[in-house]
Amino acid sequence: MIDETHALSRQSWVASANGHPLYPIQNLPLGIFSTETKDQRIGVAIGEKILDLRALAEAGLVDDRWLGALSQPTLNDWFAHGADEARALRRLLSDLLSSEAQRPQVESHLVDAVDATMHLPARIGDYTDFYVGIHHATNVGKQFRPDQPLLPNYKYVPIGYHGRASSVRVSGGPVIRPKGQRKPPNADTPDYGPSRRLDYELELGIWIGRGNELGQPIPIAEARGHIAGYCLLNDWSARDLQAWEYQPLGPFLAKNFLTSVSPWVVTPDALAPFMRAMPPRPEGDPDPLPYLRDPDAGTAALGIQIEAVLVTERMRQQGFPPLVLSEGEAAAAMYWSAAQIVTHHASNGCNLQPGDLIGTGTLSTASPSGLGSLLEISQGGKTPIAIGTGETRSFLEDGDELTLAARCVAPGAVPIGFGHVTGRVLPVVDA
Amino acid sequence: MIDETHALSRQSWVASANGHPLYPIQNLPLGIFSTETKDQRIGVAIGEKILDLRALAEAGLVDDRWLGALSQPTLNDWFAHGADEARALRRLLSDLLSSEAQRPQVESHLVDAVDATMHLPARIGDYTDFYVGIHHATNVGKQFRPDQPLLPNYKYVPIGYHGRASSVRVSGGPVIRPKGQRKPPNADTPDYGPSRRLDYELELGIWIGRGNELGQPIPIAEARGHIAGYCLLNDWSARDLQAWEYQPLGPFLAKNFLTSVSPWVVTPDALAPFMRAMPPRPEGDPDPLPYLRDPDAGTAALGIQIEAVLVTERMRQQGFPPLVLSEGEAAAAMYWSAAQIVTHHASNGCNLQPGDLIGTGTLSTASPSGLGSLLEISQGGKTPIAIGTGETRSFLEDGDELTLAARCVAPGAVPIGFGHVTGRVLPVVDA
Repeated sequence: MIDETHALSRQSWVASANGHPLYPIQNLPLGIFSTETKDQRIGVAIGEKILDLRALAEAGLVDDRWLGALSQPTLNDWFAHGADEARALRRLLSDLLSSEAQRPQVESHLVDAVDATMHLPARIGDYTDFYVGIHHATNVGKQFRPDQPLLPNYKYVPIGYHGRASSVRVSGGPVIRPKGQRKPPNADTPDYGPSRRLDYELELGIWIGRGNELGQPIPIAEARGHIAGYCLLNDWSARDLQAWEYQPLGPFLAKNFLTSVSPWVVTPDALAPFMRAMPPRPEGDPDPLPYLRDPDAGTAALGIQIEAVLVTERMRQQGFPPLVLSEGEAAAAMYWSAAQIVTHHASNGCNLQPGDLIGTGTLSTASPSGLGSLLEISQGGKTPIAIGTGETRSFLEDGDELTLAARCVAPGAVPIGFGHVTGRVLPVVDA
Repeated sequence: MIDETHALSRQSWVASANGHPLYPIQNLPLGIFSTETKDQRIGVAIGEKILDLRALAEAGLVDDRWLGALSQPTLNDWFAHGADEARALRRLLSDLLSSEAQRPQVESHLVDAVDATMHLPARIGDYTDFYVGIHHATNVGKQFRPDQPLLPNYKYVPIGYHGRASSVRVSGGPVIRPKGQRKPPNADTPDYGPSRRLDYELELGIWIGRGNELGQPIPIAEARGHIAGYCLLNDWSARDLQAWEYQPLGPFLAKNFLTSVSPWVVTPDALAPFMRAMPPRPEGDPDPLPYLRDPDAGTAALGIQIEAVLVTERMRQQGFPPLVLSEGEAAAAMYWSAAQIVTHHASNGCNLQPGDLIGTGTLSTASPSGLGSLLEISQGGKTPIAIGTGETRSFLEDGDELTLAARCVAPGAVPIGFGHVTGRVLPVVDA
């Protein structure tokens, strides 16, 4: 729903918010932060500041019924409040941060974002990764099955699998190169050692809000109401481990050593001005089965510009600007919408819980400049890319820093952003 | 380690424990229970009684350092204490429950097991299912690839994949038949409806005790110290959903609608008298890679007798005894040991946490009487089994009750048991 909280004319008395590329008053993403004097709590990004929601609640400035959830060190309890209350909070925050009359009682609850440490938004009960980026699925499928890149189920089933919740981390921590079993094509037997084909995957993450009971599917018309927000997600991948281990039960150790997310949860309400119609399915593709037919398909596609950039150790030393590896748009990459993902996930009665995290899968576009992983960019290592320093890359090397970022831009709307998720590769640990 | 807590001569003053088929004083499994007057807490099964560990701790009868962990409503914090303290608690409990002198101060903390409701032993951070039952993997593989039942990685990699933590439930709850996409071989397109091929899988569950830090593998010699105990696990499976969805990323909705576990955690110390040498690998099989070479392979195989029994609605009405579908021994089914599973899981730095649950995968033996799933028993539905009532079964029907049980028997040891995990199939919910 697009309302006065999105108005182009709405400005904040937090001066740095006005014209801020990521966090103008039209965004208001939620996150978990701490500072030297504040323990872990919920905050809202506004320009270069963070508004301390626990302090705001304790000062009696929010609905009393929210005090408990907004005083927690994670967003799980707040997510459980559901979409209507999330919208009510957004309106309240928008009013408090735009009204000069409210400024005196709110201003003392702001902290400087540079002084804050960000944490995971929620205690993640379960993390699931999907595979809805059809160009990615096609590109990867071609490397294994040139004659049949997409399997017969792809256009009926939003393909997904369970990932590891314990190793999801917020942006900024180390990326320790994993060890594992690798069997190069020309070797007879595998050995165990550091991955030689470490990769990133450019994804969006979906944070689940209100959950469903075990045994109770979520009808597609209600799926949106179960989404608390979105983040960027890097599904770090060890391609050599993956190639050797993944049959017949899917990726496992190739993925579960680390998954990184951006710290701020951008709400569906903040994204409303940027939602678009799902791209028409190509001629000949089947219609979604009835349980996946989205009555709101006209506003189901995420108009989010996403990119991945690389800085190598040598680039850093020589002062090179980040190299853009991929740039594209989520809407152009996703064969299934977020609502379809949620409904499919619960279609067998599987219970989703507040704070669950769902990855979209790698979001590559049809363009060579929009490939969301090095596996695709280097065609499995066959076409390394050149870097200005004279280096080349097929996969990530120790010291490489990989950063994902996202922005939303649309006519008549104030642009907003996601902030980034970044990580630098460290050499393997010898245990 | 086999010590005085296993002595044949050791008896309890809890009369029902002596000669109890499951919970003699030589077992002492941990679980979470509640009664009408006691909220959820840790207990120990002893004969037909449960000893309230929180009450025992609050009465000052255990080490002060354990009071916090033993007062929790789940076992997670206790599991984090690790194997040495678990052994010390076992010795203490064995003494308290065998010494008449201690009886007066302990007896008031016993409750009747029939009055207790059992709960999940732990808050499960992550649930992983393995595939180490080599006969199961072979039987299932044959149905898909008659010429190559086992893939080339099987004898090098303990194959596993992530499952769903939120839908793991303790024994006894309903098994709601899941809906999902099914595409029979003769159909052109899939449709969405109730699974027609609902199955069970006979597995053991491994409860993780002490965890490891992200990025720090667990050496094989230390893996045992990370296991808090074992349970029975039924990995309910919808075979029609599985066949259609599982490529290329593995089983998902076919499994995550429900996983059931037995309530009592049988500790590695209780199992010590029943551990045996890993069966020799068949001639020609590769040795495990060095990181999986277990220095304690001589006592790594689980000498646990496991079985699955069925009672249909009509059997119940006509008073038929349960039909044994499968019986065998874990040691004869597992190609990889529990320690190898744990070490492999963490070999890329993946962090395991106290209370994580790991399934072994279906434990079928080489015998036709030891097949751990209906998929194997009915050969994918081609050879339905006859039931005394005149019914047949290829897969589970509504009203069927499926129960797994396990016992350990060895010369010179008092037999112990796991208790069971059971569930009755209910018709699909129409949402």
